[in-house]
Amino acid sequence: MVSDAFFTPMKTLDKSSEATQLSEYCRRVAQQAKAASVELAQLRGETKIAWLRQAAESLRAQCDTILQANEQDLEAAPGYGLTDAAIDRLRLTTERVDAIAVALEQVAQLGDPIGEVIDSTVRPNGLVINKICVPLGVVFFVYESRPNVTADAAAICVKAGNAVILRGGKEAMHSSQAIVEIIRSAATETGVPADAVQLVDTTDREAVGHFLRLPESIDVAIPRGGEGLIRRVAAEAQMPVIKHFTGNCHVYVDTAADMNMATDILVNSKCQRMGVCNAAESLLVHADIASEFLPRAAKALEEKGVEIRGDERTCELVPAAITATEEDYATEFLGPTISACVVGSLAEAIEHINRYGSGHTDAIVTDNLTSAQTFTAQVDSSAVVVNASTRFNDGGEFGLGAEIGISTDKFHARGPCGIEELTSYKYVVHGSGQTRK
Amino acid sequence: MVSDAFFTPMKTLDKSSEATQLSEYCRRVAQQAKAASVELAQLRGETKIAWLRQAAESLRAQCDTILQANEQDLEAAPGYGLTDAAIDRLRLTTERVDAIAVALEQVAQLGDPIGEVIDSTVRPNGLVINKICVPLGVVFFVYESRPNVTADAAAICVKAGNAVILRGGKEAMHSSQAIVEIIRSAATETGVPADAVQLVDTTDREAVGHFLRLPESIDVAIPRGGEGLIRRVAAEAQMPVIKHFTGNCHVYVDTAADMNMATDILVNSKCQRMGVCNAAESLLVHADIASEFLPRAAKALEEKGVEIRGDERTCELVPAAITATEEDYATEFLGPTISACVVGSLAEAIEHINRYGSGHTDAIVTDNLTSAQTFTAQVDSSAVVVNASTRFNDGGEFGLGAEIGISTDKFHARGPCGIEELTSYKYVVHGSGQTRK
Repeated sequence: MVSDAFFTPMKTLDKSSEATQLSEYCRRVAQQAKAASVELAQLRGETKIAWLRQAAESLRAQCDTILQANEQDLEAAPGYGLTDAAIDRLRLTTERVDAIAVALEQVAQLGDPIGEVIDSTVRPNGLVINKICVPLGVVFFVYESRPNVTADAAAICVKAGNAVILRGGKEAMHSSQAIVEIIRSAATETGVPADAVQLVDTTDREAVGHFLRLPESIDVAIPRGGEGLIRRVAAEAQMPVIKHFTGNCHVYVDTAADMNMATDILVNSKCQRMGVCNAAESLLVHADIASEFLPRAAKALEEKGVEIRGDERTCELVPAAITATEEDYATEFLGPTISACVVGSLAEAIEHINRYGSGHTDAIVTDNLTSAQTFTAQVDSSAVVVNASTRFNDGGEFGLGAEIGISTDKFHARGPCGIEELTSYKYVVHGSGQTRK
Repeated sequence: MVSDAFFTPMKTLDKSSEATQLSEYCRRVAQQAKAASVELAQLRGETKIAWLRQAAESLRAQCDTILQANEQDLEAAPGYGLTDAAIDRLRLTTERVDAIAVALEQVAQLGDPIGEVIDSTVRPNGLVINKICVPLGVVFFVYESRPNVTADAAAICVKAGNAVILRGGKEAMHSSQAIVEIIRSAATETGVPADAVQLVDTTDREAVGHFLRLPESIDVAIPRGGEGLIRRVAAEAQMPVIKHFTGNCHVYVDTAADMNMATDILVNSKCQRMGVCNAAESLLVHADIASEFLPRAAKALEEKGVEIRGDERTCELVPAAITATEEDYATEFLGPTISACVVGSLAEAIEHINRYGSGHTDAIVTDNLTSAQTFTAQVDSSAVVVNASTRFNDGGEFGLGAEIGISTDKFHARGPCGIEELTSYKYVVHGSGQTRK
């Protein structure tokens, strides 16, 4: 049985309802993160690697402690109204704790960009201008309830040289506390400042607002969760935000498409995992091949239990389809429903995607070079995919190793955000006495 | 005499005081910019080059028109309370109009990054992941009164494939209108959408607030001017902002410095142009060389009419120095005053800079390798300079060709913002039927 002392707040905090106390707590956490970030920026890569490996080892060694903490979360889960699926995502097992440890070891093995020269110029006057990769500083990460995200986010932020303030969902609070406690101990053991990773130790929703008003200590806020959370963070934050809005992803089947390939890509994009942001939510089919493609596509989707909501032409060709509303085309279903529309041309498909899509991931299936070029140039999304599943827009699949989210912004980071996207740069200029004329 | 029709608002706008009309005007301008940005993103580089050259030619050809418009601004200037120096910056001459045209021709010659592959990976499953440079979209640029900035900003934004909404100071309104009218005509003549460049055609301060609430149409806001303007834009903007806060720049003279080089660099950093952001505002001197260096530094500064505000030790060594307050160390003087402090160590110098500095530009003069390495690693500024003047932190001096400002942010862009800093990227993925396992 884990001792009660284990769950004592990491910072001694009188959780009085007084806003000033909460505000002071948040300010102190942020200042501690800032101080840790100064140290972190100077750490050698090997120190961060040693920490990640030690943390993985400790997580495995203290698996029982984590499972006991997780048990408390599971007991409380029905009280939070969690669905069975959500409870399953919350549940830790020995295997899942091991998977968390393995993920830390994988981040340990990734390249460390900090200090690398990104770009270099020698000016005619002899000045050497080097653009050097540096950490962003302090990341405020607000996320929902899966406990593995706690460890993943800590690993990737600190690997990029940043301190992180983790604000997880209350549903996983005990599990996250246990994991963070172990990660912090591993930090102390290996020469990483413990405050590199801090878990916000109150479930008071006001705390998020307090952190969002500390731009002098926090360099970026990253919300990951439902649209409401992201909109709230974007509206309140006084520091930059990396947003991950909806994924209303499209598969467009062009007149020059291979029908088998198109069916495979469509089914994989829609059905391989329905509840995720890079799953397809809308099918566009060129009119010239609609009568050949739509019936077979519909059959393949129906076998997976997917309902089709289509325009008039789709409903003619697919008797089981129901009529789509305007709103359907703008909806991220995250479940067994797909909207469908027959388009008269590639241009119409692109227009439809840029109007209804969310700039996340959109795919074309075609064997025509001009169609592929036009689609990839004109569709304004974080990833545009030719002849492959939308499901590949992912840090792991793109080879980034790990990701903290997929940005639907264009500013600073777009698409999967890995270690590099959590960095900035500075110019280091070397001269030999140059003055400006 | 220029006809009155020339100054008719570009958009037919009943400048009623009703907020809704202003709001609708701003929305329409933003939507026109967004529509233009879609076209701009697909333009070939040669079209943008042709536009810039045509614009330069037209500016020269219609120099008289510009000078007449400028005359109206100059006549109104005393009414705005402009100083003689400010009026001089506002004044255009044939030579200055030619310089504006030359600047456009220089931007024409710069490389065009749009469409370039920034990074490329081939995944084990054969997927080719290309990271492609794309424009940001729409830039909202808010600036003060110099008319050449109008043309410079238009050129650099559009070269990077962005549409720009220019909101200049009222003091240069007629000059800017004349310049923008010519630039827009050149656009139409060369196949660039005219709405690539729009000048906000009202001096109502409320207009800025309206634009800052249109994140769906505007991708980034860039304020350039006084601290009040920048703070207002940062606080109100619902889209990302590239901020250019104060430049409280330091020169630190290390124990291993060459005294002549240190004096030259100090004087150049402080005096080559006092009113600019990358001018030095504070001098730090290592205690071991203070008695040797400070008197000669003071003499050189006094010859340029610069007052020194120093700590106790500085005042001992420099009789003319007056005692510095805490606030002096945090002040961007932008004039003939410099703060000075004797520090006991390199570490103390770094701590001083990170506490009082503004993260803009800081220089060390030293011949010691470890000092140089420590300083460049630990000073957290957009540019850290070894043995050269702070005045080099500039887009032109760094070889970026042109800049829209110098960012004191860490997010997206840090230091001089040239064409590349006004771009984003998308992932273009090429497959041959890959689906996710």
